[in-house]
Amino acid sequence: MRAAPAGPVDYLLRTSTVVDSEFELVYLAVTRLAQGAYPHARAALDAAHDAWTRAVLDEVGDPVVARAVVLISDGLYAHAALTSSPPATGAGTGGGPTSDAGTEEPLAFRAPRPGEDVDDLLTLVREVVAMRNARTTDGV
Amino acid sequence: MRAAPAGPVDYLLRTSTVVDSEFELVYLAVTRLAQGAYPHARAALDAAHDAWTRAVLDEVGDPVVARAVVLISDGLYAHAALTSSPPATGAGTGGGPTSDAGTEEPLAFRAPRPGEDVDDLLTLVREVVAMRNARTTDGV
Repeated sequence: MRAAPAGPVDYLLRTSTVVDSEFELVYLAVTRLAQGAYPHARAALDAAHDAWTRAVLDEVGDPVVARAVVLISDGLYAHAALTSSPPATGAGTGGGPTSDAGTEEPLAFRAPRPGEDVDDLLTLVREVVAMRNARTTDGV
Repeated sequence: MRAAPAGPVDYLLRTSTVVDSEFELVYLAVTRLAQGAYPHARAALDAAHDAWTRAVLDEVGDPVVARAVVLISDGLYAHAALTSSPPATGAGTGGGPTSDAGTEEPLAFRAPRPGEDVDDLLTLVREVVAMRNARTTDGV
């Protein structure tokens, strides 16, 4: 992650929308164990999150922004994990819309969907980092 | 949520760290169903997320910021859900730290923990909204 050409934040947010890799299978398994009563699984998850937070913090230089970035990554992952399994039971024929059907809703009113690109989020993070840096410089 | 005195963003982020309510039990159950092959559970979750995103968007006035806020909320919830169950199997005596033990690690290097207050995140969101609003005003 630290070796990623575009930096840790770019790497973390882009990989958080992918749940088909071997890593994600392991991560999901550890998450499920941690949801049970396995303190070591939970400790392993905490250690992984701390390492990610530290790498992000080194890039953005602000603990609150780093926390927000890691939470956004967790949110992206939660959404991606939710819809990673294929809709195996055929097209929905009953009442109510199936979420994977059309995407005709007005874009501005839609919640995040898995697989969506994260360029706008990365731009926002860069702006926030610049904003916080400018304030720090003002203070000197 | 729209009727919350401090606004939708405040309400969403603060309630995302609480997983002991009856609502959260229902939400978790629907999430588990959606992880399986239940398109209606998935559609219900998508509808809930869309409603939250819409309420947040009405407050912050910027789709990317609204998306980031909802993802932060999802991240907070994922963390809270992970450690909501009590560590039933007694204190960890084996190797490796148990995550619920001391909180002696250096604060700046820690990933988010459930139950932590979200005041710093709310302050950050307010700053980002002000930044984006200022830019819009500049453009006029």
